[in-house]
Amino acid sequence: MSGEDAPAQQQNAEEQKPQQQDGEPKNESPQTENKPEATPAESVAAAASAEAAAAPADKPAEEDTFSYRALVLTGYGGYDKVKLQVKKGKPALKSGEVMVRVKACGLNFADLMARQGLYDRLPSPPVTPGMECSGIIEAVGEDVTDRKVGDKVLVLNRSGLWQEVVVVPTLHTFPMPEGMSFEEAAALPVNYVTAYMMLFDFGHLRPNQSVLIHMAAGGVGIAATQLSKTVKEVTIFGTASASKHEVISEGGVTHPIDYRTRDYVEEVRKINPKGVDIVLDPLGGSDTQKGYNLLKPMGKLISYGAANMLSGQKKNLFAVAKTWYQQFTVHTLSLCQNNRAICGFHLGYLDSELVVDVMNSLLELYQQGKIKPRIDSTYHFEQVGDAMRRMQERGNIGKIILTTEPMKEEPKKEEAKKDEKEKKEDKKKEDKKKEEKKKDEAKKEEKKEDKKKEEPKKEEKKAEEKKVEEKKEEAKKEEN
Amino acid sequence: MSGEDAPAQQQNAEEQKPQQQDGEPKNESPQTENKPEATPAESVAAAASAEAAAAPADKPAEEDTFSYRALVLTGYGGYDKVKLQVKKGKPALKSGEVMVRVKACGLNFADLMARQGLYDRLPSPPVTPGMECSGIIEAVGEDVTDRKVGDKVLVLNRSGLWQEVVVVPTLHTFPMPEGMSFEEAAALPVNYVTAYMMLFDFGHLRPNQSVLIHMAAGGVGIAATQLSKTVKEVTIFGTASASKHEVISEGGVTHPIDYRTRDYVEEVRKINPKGVDIVLDPLGGSDTQKGYNLLKPMGKLISYGAANMLSGQKKNLFAVAKTWYQQFTVHTLSLCQNNRAICGFHLGYLDSELVVDVMNSLLELYQQGKIKPRIDSTYHFEQVGDAMRRMQERGNIGKIILTTEPMKEEPKKEEAKKDEKEKKEDKKKEDKKKEEKKKDEAKKEEKKEDKKKEEPKKEEKKAEEKKVEEKKEEAKKEEN
Repeated sequence: MSGEDAPAQQQNAEEQKPQQQDGEPKNESPQTENKPEATPAESVAAAASAEAAAAPADKPAEEDTFSYRALVLTGYGGYDKVKLQVKKGKPALKSGEVMVRVKACGLNFADLMARQGLYDRLPSPPVTPGMECSGIIEAVGEDVTDRKVGDKVLVLNRSGLWQEVVVVPTLHTFPMPEGMSFEEAAALPVNYVTAYMMLFDFGHLRPNQSVLIHMAAGGVGIAATQLSKTVKEVTIFGTASASKHEVISEGGVTHPIDYRTRDYVEEVRKINPKGVDIVLDPLGGSDTQKGYNLLKPMGKLISYGAANMLSGQKKNLFAVAKTWYQQFTVHTLSLCQNNRAICGFHLGYLDSELVVDVMNSLLELYQQGKIKPRIDSTYHFEQVGDAMRRMQERGNIGKIILTTEPMKEEPKKEEAKKDEKEKKEDKKKEDKKKEEKKKDEAKKEEKKEDKKKEEPKKEEKKAEEKKVEEKKEEAKKEEN
Repeated sequence: MSGEDAPAQQQNAEEQKPQQQDGEPKNESPQTENKPEATPAESVAAAASAEAAAAPADKPAEEDTFSYRALVLTGYGGYDKVKLQVKKGKPALKSGEVMVRVKACGLNFADLMARQGLYDRLPSPPVTPGMECSGIIEAVGEDVTDRKVGDKVLVLNRSGLWQEVVVVPTLHTFPMPEGMSFEEAAALPVNYVTAYMMLFDFGHLRPNQSVLIHMAAGGVGIAATQLSKTVKEVTIFGTASASKHEVISEGGVTHPIDYRTRDYVEEVRKINPKGVDIVLDPLGGSDTQKGYNLLKPMGKLISYGAANMLSGQKKNLFAVAKTWYQQFTVHTLSLCQNNRAICGFHLGYLDSELVVDVMNSLLELYQQGKIKPRIDSTYHFEQVGDAMRRMQERGNIGKIILTTEPMKEEPKKEEAKKDEKEKKEDKKKEDKKKEEKKKDEAKKEEKKEDKKKEEPKKEEKKAEEKKVEEKKEEAKKEEN
């Protein structure tokens, strides 16, 4: 956790775009290996979007040319195992399903666990992760009457959402309320459903009670804080490193605790000698026992992860074994004698219609202004490794978002604030820069590709080069 | 459990008084040992009540003569370890306390556990058990403003209520609603607070959910059934032996299951393939695992005892060890992967102001006619062994009550139905009898006091024989 404050330059990706562009090479080392896929992916995606925008003369049948970029977990391991690839062919749309053009995706701890092979709900690699996203409905299957093309939706699914196009049952989609951004929409489902079900179903939080929220600056932590605040006179203890205290206090944490310099058990006892009514525990290991001991009579500890297992970008067998070994087991007689409950929650394992009701309640709370996802930072698909590292190293305050927007079009968002003319000018400049970069990168890539194991990539490279060439031409055309 | 239907002749003690009197010698064997204390106790108590009624000429100072009968656990073991004794001297009344003249007490599973030495919340013997009673306030301490002499109250206390006079903090008393009998009042606190907190705090029972209630014909079982019915469309599975099904169905159990001839897990699955939302588990041992496996996602198992440990009137080390060995332990990762909660509840271990709120909610529900304790049977203090055996052998449907009314005054209740004149006449006769008895017994007592500890049993038998004789005579008189 020494790196918690390290990636500060990424804290607000959108606001720091110029810096990020300049600084990008600095961040490349951990991403080096997935760049090769990223580059062709980008170009193909660009081709696809160009298709829509410019409508080339010889347009082939859509089914043949349909392609979309997707993040793919290619094997268990470090950040580089998630690669940007291109999937081809239009996905089939069954009855009751909808196709969504994805705008933004949420990053979750389960995704980090999955990458290390510690999450058994994700099918074996190669597989596209992603439990939540937002986007626009592009097509609806038979018998779909509650959604129509053009609807903006939030999507919650077991996996597979980190791609530009997803096909999901309509039941997994929820209309976005007015005024909600795609980033907020992608930030809401997993964290808020998790926090809601823990606090209000298992926890049965009521007025005048107290809650201990670990990782209070994380996605679930901030959601849990906001949701706790919807109940009167709730005292919130929140652990986070000192640098985040100001933000979480403003968000509603009554007593922020720096777990790195203080014993949080002592800190809670100082203020609430009898302990707390609810502990939300994403840590696991020995922290579960500590939380259990902090419970008042009728108190509930809700375990929802084992973040302590993650002690680096690759699976750390020692950390896993230690967390597992220290993982809390409890005897019912102990529960009876203490009048306590211990609950386990993991949305990824929850197949329940309950989620639909909870999502609807959450969207109502959003509309009432009672909850609002806090976006920590937004990364492009190409930067997924950086995004994961930021979460792994606890750099974030709030949600980390992945945007489907290709990296070369990065400034788009800022442009939205500018007027149209300025936009066009900026775009030209950027395109030039990117072209230059791409040339360099394409060269680097070639070298790397050769060294790869089976080297099936040579043909791809040619295709790639061709595309790069095509792009240059296109860019020139646009400039003219 | 083979004896479940055995003590059928006791099923309704009140309605079977003539039979019980004739048949009493049959039931005496397990009670033989505690009779000696019972006899003098009765007489002294009778003296006390006679004092109030007849006001003898040479009345000594109240503090010196004040005495009251009390059930006392004299050591761990069988039914005979609870003896009826007389406590002398008026208990001191501190600020904030009230003195209650007890009318009826509730019998609970914890009392059976305590007698076997399996309940560590009861102080070491000799000690008076009893967690709940009802009665009339006889005196109030300083600073007591919310209760006054003559108030009818329910009392909930950690222990010590099985006696004619109790002194408790006023906070542990609750005014009896209009129309509530003393028996109902003594039946309500433990069972209904337990059922309420399990279902509505830990369980968070909501409309359309399902509950599995073990021992559905027991005190908590019936309370839980009634409370579940206050929530819309709740499906109730209830286990009980077949002979009790009619009663529990009428009480609200949707699907009664005969656990002695059927596998309750299969029976539940047949009707609810996905399982249930809440399991109330008073059994412990291997049944906890079975209940856990029956939980739906977000389901809660609430353990509130280990009735499986009780397999006879004396501590069965094998049953205790087996139940302990099979007692459920759970790993938080299993809870997470299943989205389940496991909770432990035991009112005896709960020191919480929450109980006050719950009691008030319950009394409101009673007044609304939504809950009503079902009295299985009422036993005199002298019959506490029979009462315990009835519960141990699962003979009861509803609550077993101990009344402080001395046994010789048994017909009093029937008299309540007679008109006032008859009553007064009867009372005079009784008083005479008492006076006669008292003289004899007072003498006996003196002798006994000397011999106590060593072998107090010989006299007991004699006294018993005498008593039987007296009873026969009384019965004859009544017949005439």
